Amino acid sequence: MSEKIAVILGAGPGLGAAVARRFSGEGFAVALMSRRRESFLRAQREIEERGGRVLSVTADAADAASVASAFDRVRDELGAPEVLVYNAGAFRMGGILEVPPETFEECWRVNCAGAFHAAQQVLPEMAERGRGTVLLTGATASLRGSANFSALAVGKFGLRALAQSMAREFGPRGIHVAHVIIDGQIDTERVREMYPGRESHTMLSPESIAEVYWQLHAQDPTAWTLELDLRPAVERF
Amino acid sequence: MSEKIAVILGAGPGLGAAVARRFSGEGFAVALMSRRRESFLRAQREIEERGGRVLSVTADAADAASVASAFDRVRDELGAPEVLVYNAGAFRMGGILEVPPETFEECWRVNCAGAFHAAQQVLPEMAERGRGTVLLTGATASLRGSANFSALAVGKFGLRALAQSMAREFGPRGIHVAHVIIDGQIDTERVREMYPGRESHTMLSPESIAEVYWQLHAQDPTAWTLELDLRPAVERF
Amino acid sequence: MSEKIAVILGAGPGLGAAVARRFSGEGFAVALMSRRRESFLRAQREIEERGGRVLSVTADAADAASVASAFDRVRDELGAPEVLVYNAGAFRMGGILEVPPETFEECWRVNCAGAFHAAQQVLPEMAERGRGTVLLTGATASLRGSANFSALAVGKFGLRALAQSMAREFGPRGIHVAHVIIDGQIDTERVREMYPGRESHTMLSPESIAEVYWQLHAQDPTAWTLELDLRPAVERF
Amino acid sequence: MSEKIAVILGAGPGLGAAVARRFSGEGFAVALMSRRRESFLRAQREIEERGGRVLSVTADAADAASVASAFDRVRDELGAPEVLVYNAGAFRMGGILEVPPETFEECWRVNCAGAFHAAQQVLPEMAERGRGTVLLTGATASLRGSANFSALAVGKFGLRALAQSMAREFGPRGIHVAHVIIDGQIDTERVREMYPGRESHTMLSPESIAEVYWQLHAQDPTAWTLELDLRPAVERF
Repeated sequence: MSEKIAVILGAGPGLGAAVARRFSGEGFAVALMSRRRESFLRAQREIEERGGRVLSVTADAADAASVASAFDRVRDELGAPEVLVYNAGAFRMGGILEVPPETFEECWRVNCAGAFHAAQQVLPEMAERGRGTVLLTGATASLRGSANFSALAVGKFGLRALAQSMAREFGPRGIHVAHVIIDGQIDTERVREMYPGRESHTMLSPESIAEVYWQLHAQDPTAWTLELDLRPAVERF
Repeated sequence: MSEKIAVILGAGPGLGAAVARRFSGEGFAVALMSRRRESFLRAQREIEERGGRVLSVTADAADAASVASAFDRVRDELGAPEVLVYNAGAFRMGGILEVPPETFEECWRVNCAGAFHAAQQVLPEMAERGRGTVLLTGATASLRGSANFSALAVGKFGLRALAQSMAREFGPRGIHVAHVIIDGQIDTERVREMYPGRESHTMLSPESIAEVYWQLHAQDPTAWTLELDLRPAVERF
Repeated sequence: MSEKIAVILGAGPGLGAAVARRFSGEGFAVALMSRRRESFLRAQREIEERGGRVLSVTADAADAASVASAFDRVRDELGAPEVLVYNAGAFRMGGILEVPPETFEECWRVNCAGAFHAAQQVLPEMAERGRGTVLLTGATASLRGSANFSALAVGKFGLRALAQSMAREFGPRGIHVAHVIIDGQIDTERVREMYPGRESHTMLSPESIAEVYWQLHAQDPTAWTLELDLRPAVERF
Repeated sequence: MSEKIAVILGAGPGLGAAVARRFSGEGFAVALMSRRRESFLRAQREIEERGGRVLSVTADAADAASVASAFDRVRDELGAPEVLVYNAGAFRMGGILEVPPETFEECWRVNCAGAFHAAQQVLPEMAERGRGTVLLTGATASLRGSANFSALAVGKFGLRALAQSMAREFGPRGIHVAHVIIDGQIDTERVREMYPGRESHTMLSPESIAEVYWQLHAQDPTAWTLELDLRPAVERF
C-alpha cells in the first residue's frame, strides 16, 4: 500500500478515463467510481494492460451513503487517497417549467452535493498528512446561467462555491483545491456519434485536459491555481 | 379579486415583513409564506391595521409539494400572483467536515430549490399575461465561497444561476427577474439582540431594501436590472 | 447658491440630457459639460424653459487641465457639486491591429481617465461635507472584452476598477459611488437614424435610465448599490 | 535564425528573469526588454553562462515608438517572436486625491497600453504563421479595485480586457493569449529586503510561476487556458 492513490469519481469513458490513465502513468493506483460498471470497464482494462493498478467501484455520487461505502473500499483495498478528481455530472436541458422538481434536485446532487460527500471522505486524512489535491470539473455553466440550462448551472455554480470554500479552508493546511472550467465539447465517442463529421480540433481532447489536471496536482505550493478555464482555440465565447 | 397580488416566501420579521408592507402600501394584496406561523403574525397584524389585505400560509420552501399547496391557496383566495419575492434562507456555519450531509442538502433546498419550486408555481400565469416580477434575495455568499460558508454559498451561488437562467428565458416574455445581493447585516430585532449596542448605520435597514425591491418591480421594461448589490456606506468589502 | 448642484460630464443629447432633466426636476442646478457646444444646447434650452438653472461649459474629459478649469467655473458660478455623473465615452471599433496607438490611448482617456480627473475635482468638498454622489456610466464592455472592442473595453473595465477603488475609499466618508452597466442600445436620435424602423422597446429609454440614476442618488446610506445593470426586457445577453 | 524567439517585456530580476531562463532552457532565444539596463544584466549573464542566446534591449513600455524600435531590433537580430510575455508594471499606491493625474496615466500606460503596443508588433507575423503565444501578467488588482489601488487596478483591469479581446480575435487564428493573475507577493530580492525574515513559503517562487507560463505556451490548441490564478497555499484571499 505504498503507492499514491487517486480516486476519480465520475469515471466515464471520456475525461474520467483519460485522467485515470494520466495519473496511472505517473505511478498512481487509481480508483474508478461510477454509477454503472460499463462506464469504467474499458478504462480499467486499458490501465491494467499497461501494468497499472486499478480498483473499480460502483457508486452513486448523489447518495452520501453510497459514496461513503465506495471510499471505505478504496481505503481497505488501496489506502488513503492523495488525489480526488470529481468529475460526475448530470443534466436535463429544458426551460424552468419543463424540468420536474425531482430532476432539478437530482442534477444538483450529482453536479454538486456528490463533491461535498467525496470531500468529506478524503479531507480528514489529507489534512492529517498536510497534503492532497482535490480537482473539480466545472463547465461553461459554472459562470453563466443560460436559458434552458438551470438544472446544470445551479449545480455547477454551487460546485464552484464549494471549491472556493474548500480552498480557503484547506489550502493553508496543505491541500490544493482546483476548479477547471471546461468551456466546450469534450471529444468522446458519444459526442462523435451525435455529431458525425465534427472536426477534432473543435473539441477538447480528453488527454489534453488530463495533462492540465496532472499539472495542477504537480504545482508547487507557492503558486497554486484555484481556477482556470479550458477551451478549443476555435471556440466562440 | 381585482387587486394585484404579491407573494413573499420567506416572510420573516425583518426583510420579508418590510417588503410585504411596501407592496401592501402600493395596493397589493400580499401573501406571506413562512415555515412557522410566528414568523408572519406581526407583519400580518401591522398590514391589516393599515387596511391592507393579507393571506398567511405556512409552507416549507424546501418541499415542492408544500410550496405547491401554499400557492394553490393563494390562487384560490387571492388570485394569480403578479410578484414573487423569494426570501427564504437557511445556514449552518461550519467547516466542510463539520456540516452533516443532510444539513448541507437542506440548506441548499431552502436557499435555492425553493425558489425553483415557487417559480414553477407563478411563471405559467405570468407568462400567459406577459407580465410579472420575480425578486430573489442574494447575499455576500452569492459571489464568494468563504471558509466555513459552503452550506450557504452553494445555495446562494445556485440561486444566482437560477436568476440568470430564468431572466434569459422569461425576460423576453415580459417577466422581470432580479437578484439582489445583500452584503451586510440586516437590522432586525434578532441581530440587535445578538449584537447589543451595534449602531443602526452599520446595518441595512429593511425598509430601505424594501424600497429597492419596489423600484425593481416598477422599472420600465426598456431598462431592467438583473442584479444589484446593497450594503451600508460603512461596510468593508 | 443654496441649491444643490449636479454636474454631468458627457452631456450628450441622449442619456446626459435625460439625467440633467431628471435632476433639474428635483430642484438641482445642473452643469452640463461636453466637448462641443452643440451637444448640450438643446438640453440647456429645455431645462431653462421649465425654469431650471443650467450652466453649460465646454470641456475635454481627456484633458485634466480642461476638466479642472470647467469645474472652476462650476464652483464660481454655481457652487460645490453634490452629484457628479460621468457619462463621457469614446470608441473606435476595430481589431487590435487596426486601432492606432493614439486612438487606443485617447479612448481610454475619455472612457476612464476623465472620471479620475472629475473625481479629483469634486471629492475634496464632498468629503468635507461627508456627503455626495458619483455616478459612472458603464457598458456591456465593462464586463467583457469582445473581439474588435478592445478600445472600449480597456477603458470601461478601468472605469469599473476606479468605481470600486473610489467606493471603498470614500463610501465610509459618506460619498455614494455607483457604477451602472448599460447593456444595450440607448434610444437616441442618432441611433434611430442609424437603424430606421428599430422598435422602441428594443432600446433603453434615456428617461428610464435617468430615473435609476436619480434613485441611486436618493438611496439610504444603509443600503447603497455599487453596481447594477440595465437592459431591455428583450435584449439577448 | 532558426530558433524560436521569446520576448519578455518587463524583464526585471524576479519573474521576468525566471521566465527568460525557463524559455531559454527549452531552446528559445530570448529578448529581454526593460526600461533600465540594470534590470536585465544579471538575467542575461546567467542565461549566456548556460549557453543560451540573449538579446537585451532597453525599451519604455509606455511609449509606442520605443516599443516599436525595440521590436525592430529583435526582428533584425533574432527574428520574428513566437512568444510575447508582457510583464511590465508600475504602481503608485495612494488615495484618489493623492495620485497626480500624470502618475495615474503613466501607470496605466505601463500596466496596460504597453501590452497593446507590444501586441501590435508581434501579432502580424504570428497571424501569418497561424501560431504564437501571448502571456500577460495580471495581479490581485486585475479583479478588485481596492482603496488606494486605483492607479494599479485601472491598468490591470484594462490589461484583462485586452487579453479577452485579443483572445477572441486571435485565438481562432492560432494565437494563444493567456492572462495570469498573480495573487500574492513574488519572492524577489527586493521583497526580501523590504520584509526581512519573511518565510519563503508565503511568497510565490518566480520559478514556479515561470513553469506555469511554459505550460501555458505548451498547451494543446484543443484545450487552451485564457485565465488562471496563482497564489501561495497559505495566502488569505
